[in-house]
Amino acid sequence: MKSKIAKTAVVLLSGGLDSATALYFAKAKGYQCRCLIFDYGQLHKKEITSAVNIAKASRCPYEILKIGFPWRGSALLDKKVKISKKIKPGIPSTYVPARNIIFLSFALSFAETIKAKAIFIGAHAQDYSGYPDCRPEFFQVFAEMAKVGTYGGGRIKILAPLLNKKKAQIISLGQRLGVPFNLSWSCYRGAKLPCGICDSCYYRAKGFKEAGLADPLTK
Amino acid sequence: MKSKIAKTAVVLLSGGLDSATALYFAKAKGYQCRCLIFDYGQLHKKEITSAVNIAKASRCPYEILKIGFPWRGSALLDKKVKISKKIKPGIPSTYVPARNIIFLSFALSFAETIKAKAIFIGAHAQDYSGYPDCRPEFFQVFAEMAKVGTYGGGRIKILAPLLNKKKAQIISLGQRLGVPFNLSWSCYRGAKLPCGICDSCYYRAKGFKEAGLADPLTK
Repeated sequence: MKSKIAKTAVVLLSGGLDSATALYFAKAKGYQCRCLIFDYGQLHKKEITSAVNIAKASRCPYEILKIGFPWRGSALLDKKVKISKKIKPGIPSTYVPARNIIFLSFALSFAETIKAKAIFIGAHAQDYSGYPDCRPEFFQVFAEMAKVGTYGGGRIKILAPLLNKKKAQIISLGQRLGVPFNLSWSCYRGAKLPCGICDSCYYRAKGFKEAGLADPLTK
Repeated sequence: MKSKIAKTAVVLLSGGLDSATALYFAKAKGYQCRCLIFDYGQLHKKEITSAVNIAKASRCPYEILKIGFPWRGSALLDKKVKISKKIKPGIPSTYVPARNIIFLSFALSFAETIKAKAIFIGAHAQDYSGYPDCRPEFFQVFAEMAKVGTYGGGRIKILAPLLNKKKAQIISLGQRLGVPFNLSWSCYRGAKLPCGICDSCYYRAKGFKEAGLADPLTK
């Protein structure tokens, strides 16, 4: 007889639609999810509010972890660094060194504390280009490190279910899973409406278009 | 001709004598050191004050990084968890899951931001027993993960120069390097004087005795 005790998972939630889809995917797989939201000095707090609203909509408990980064250098943390308006080759101005490594390390600490079986992260194919800690080989070696560096890490799976999906595929999947896209926020800027010109807005708009759906934020 | 530009290193500084020795060791090796101190909700702030004092004494700049851990469960973070009075087998009550993983991840982010060549951590042999993220194989796999997960991680060495040393050897080395042991703090409790009964006090006292030196804190 299969145990009826639900498996627990820690889900990294950013307020964007990818991590929201990862959350609803984890729920659909039968995990009891605990959301982990970071308040790490983002230029605008809209991401955090969105993440909280998504967690509430999913009826999953959430924790907000505050980090006071003493150094800057990324457009996401520093008003002096300009957010690129166009897709450019090279290191994006929004790159925060080791950000996913830091986020996953906290998720690992949380997962070990609450004896969770898995960590979900919404990283996906489009992220690879700019962020080395979004690549499949990174998640593999992180899991290896987690196994060696903790007591329970070998039992905790690092799951990035969107890794091989394009934005349009994620949006289609999220639509099927009932993700409240109206609560999500992707724009790197924190104005009332998405700016429509940053990388993140560009990919979101393209994704909705390719998925044949309307973005509730820009309707 | 050898370049005269000093190499930069990030040094994790806790306020204890191990990390202080690692700092002075890195300095002796010609590194320009940037100290990284964590304020992560320790039960007492004495560790942080000690770390700051050691950084100042060494004339190295330091950064204090604040982390608001929303979960507890370790005696170092939670007053409800008792600090073990005796050396016991098994997981120590002071274990914070993935603590070194988290600290090294931040050090990595900082090192990549300032283009440092190395990260120094004062982990040593006596730590192995209790903490999986203090073992040599952990540092090896962390370095591998850093290489895959960042742009510059492959150029950043993770150095744990005390890894094969016992406490007495660390104290002898620190003595030779001029470490201000009087500024360091090892006790898990934050009273005016070391409690003398926690694991950390026990090992410190034993170390000084075996090194044939007097501990300036208990003189």
